[in-house]
Amino acid sequence: MNSVPGLADRATRLVGSPIDSSTSLLARQRHDIVRFAMGSPADDMVPTALISDLARGVFCTGDAGPLQYAASEGDPALRGPLLALLDSLGENPDPDRLLITSGGMQGLDLACTLFVDPGDLVAVESPTYTNGMATAMSYGGQILEVPVDRDGMVVEALPGLAAQAGRPPSVIYVIPTFQNPSGVTMSEARRRMLLDLAARWDSVIIDDDPYGLLRFAGRDVPGLQELSGNDPRVVSVRTFSKIIAPGLRVGWIQADPQIVTTMVAAKQAMDTCTNLPAQRIVAGLLSGGHLASHLNRARAEYRRRKQAMDASLRRWLGDVATWTDPEGGFFLWVTLPDGVDAERLFEVALAQGVAFIPGPAFSASGGLRNAIRLCFASNGPERTDEGVARLAAALAAVPA
Amino acid sequence: MNSVPGLADRATRLVGSPIDSSTSLLARQRHDIVRFAMGSPADDMVPTALISDLARGVFCTGDAGPLQYAASEGDPALRGPLLALLDSLGENPDPDRLLITSGGMQGLDLACTLFVDPGDLVAVESPTYTNGMATAMSYGGQILEVPVDRDGMVVEALPGLAAQAGRPPSVIYVIPTFQNPSGVTMSEARRRMLLDLAARWDSVIIDDDPYGLLRFAGRDVPGLQELSGNDPRVVSVRTFSKIIAPGLRVGWIQADPQIVTTMVAAKQAMDTCTNLPAQRIVAGLLSGGHLASHLNRARAEYRRRKQAMDASLRRWLGDVATWTDPEGGFFLWVTLPDGVDAERLFEVALAQGVAFIPGPAFSASGGLRNAIRLCFASNGPERTDEGVARLAAALAAVPA
Repeated sequence: MNSVPGLADRATRLVGSPIDSSTSLLARQRHDIVRFAMGSPADDMVPTALISDLARGVFCTGDAGPLQYAASEGDPALRGPLLALLDSLGENPDPDRLLITSGGMQGLDLACTLFVDPGDLVAVESPTYTNGMATAMSYGGQILEVPVDRDGMVVEALPGLAAQAGRPPSVIYVIPTFQNPSGVTMSEARRRMLLDLAARWDSVIIDDDPYGLLRFAGRDVPGLQELSGNDPRVVSVRTFSKIIAPGLRVGWIQADPQIVTTMVAAKQAMDTCTNLPAQRIVAGLLSGGHLASHLNRARAEYRRRKQAMDASLRRWLGDVATWTDPEGGFFLWVTLPDGVDAERLFEVALAQGVAFIPGPAFSASGGLRNAIRLCFASNGPERTDEGVARLAAALAAVPA
Repeated sequence: MNSVPGLADRATRLVGSPIDSSTSLLARQRHDIVRFAMGSPADDMVPTALISDLARGVFCTGDAGPLQYAASEGDPALRGPLLALLDSLGENPDPDRLLITSGGMQGLDLACTLFVDPGDLVAVESPTYTNGMATAMSYGGQILEVPVDRDGMVVEALPGLAAQAGRPPSVIYVIPTFQNPSGVTMSEARRRMLLDLAARWDSVIIDDDPYGLLRFAGRDVPGLQELSGNDPRVVSVRTFSKIIAPGLRVGWIQADPQIVTTMVAAKQAMDTCTNLPAQRIVAGLLSGGHLASHLNRARAEYRRRKQAMDASLRRWLGDVATWTDPEGGFFLWVTLPDGVDAERLFEVALAQGVAFIPGPAFSASGGLRNAIRLCFASNGPERTDEGVARLAAALAAVPA
């Protein structure tokens, strides 16, 4: 009578997230650990004073309104200022193209729900964001890994890889700007090439863009929606998690109105609506005009921290490792000597007091074994240097 | 170049929620409307003062911690007091059986993700909760509707219906206590019968229980988990939406540890984690010992409101309608004369200033055309009487 009942096919394809699980794993550690693992904004880059003021206005008026159900497409109080923000960024502020989501992850789930059927070929960058790939796989997507270089996904390789696979991908999942985990940005030429391929193949592009507003060096590259003239094949997934605070779980999707309509139905079957107090807090931050100065401060600080990590890597690992040179976002991708097992290194490093995410978490095939993702955004320069020193000590203790 | 790309099979099965969509529909109305539509706690039953105090402690300390990512299985600060609450209710407080969710709806989505494959037979009450049924249908579930009487699902009819369908249901979706939308409660005898059938057929029972703590009359009936001795076939989905505030989007699942482990992986692909400030607010409400007195106040008030709606229905519709007699929860189910089209009635009633949910929203087959769901919890007695009077006027204006 007490055996666990059989799982649905989709459930057997769920792999979980080594990144998300690291939150619990690290919370259980009792000793001092330098955290390069999670893609969270630094504690001191979360605008706590602003959020505190705004939370008072939401929670402390005696009005139950902000504690009731919200409209599934998002609260009008947030949708308005967000459309104004998009307009100010030169993007299409059509309200019918906008859906508020419970963080960027729900946006990826919605996109995969709509466009990934069992057996579909899904092209991804290699390395790519664990959870985006895992979600596509949970819907039965077959992963086609496309290499990444300093200009993002090597789009030139895609037709050949598709030919090898015997068919073009029906979905192409990319993080074009300050890619997770590599930190690189796809060049405009490659973006145009990608759009041409998607048009030729009638593929959907899931354009995952959590970090685009966090550029601290170099020049903006036009987004896929803009370059495509708002082609319905481009579904953009964005979030306030990295630019305001992840605990609020507020993100958004920009997509064709027909896609948004179907996504509203899908969202109603996922979580009814997004947390309303959190929507109101973000709304207040946008409509109060606070975002620009907050982002300026964050960009300057993340630039400093990235430079500090770069310097520490040169100091402690310059002889043995190579790493990327991101112009924004949160992550560096470090390639260690051939033969280093990053998962084994993780265990040793954790015991020595430093945490990161091993490369295989970003690969469908368990590859990228000698690479690691470091988040440079979470720690100040001194703490970062201590963490990289511990990493170098751990590496020295792990036989290659 | 600009056609919308083809949808995945699952997306073609998404129907959306007439209940959730009514939030936006009603927000757009400019005239005075008595709202019997949504299943929301009354504004004056949301503990705004308590939540305000707790929100200050979460948002206003300068600590960014509550604004960062939470553990996917739920924040320890909430899990602890929730386990204590379950223990005090005589339920199994095993932490491995507990998962925090983003509201009850995510709990239903998780349960369907794990257990509903395309083509699976899913038995539901008729009427049943729209979104639960729609989610099962979106995963490809074939719906088997089982009638409801004053003692809940007519479980005695289930073997015959299964025989007609040619196979037993692999999933049985029930709302045993203060059922949505009928308000009835499944008797203990029927609960035992249901558990026996599930054991015989190896079916999973999705036990949807949003209202169980809102009993204001009659005697408690043991829950399915308790009656089954925590059989892994029973997955219980619960929420703070109806007892604290739906805007917080915090719920939980109680299930077998192996099921919970798989659900954590599924949740990581859905929304990473549940809004952390909301978890901390609910945690404060539980650990501060505020829930019991809040529930006592709410139960007394909902009892008064249910009695008021009952009296108004007798006054205005006593000659033409019949309705249920719930001992808790939020809803009455009203059966109107044969031939009344509740969807047509809705349009007329909305123009006359009263809103409800028409019966067909609760039917997979578009049946229940002459029935409506009324939420008695949202309005005080005078306002309820005004609403029922408007409903009677609308009914008189709609030819049967």
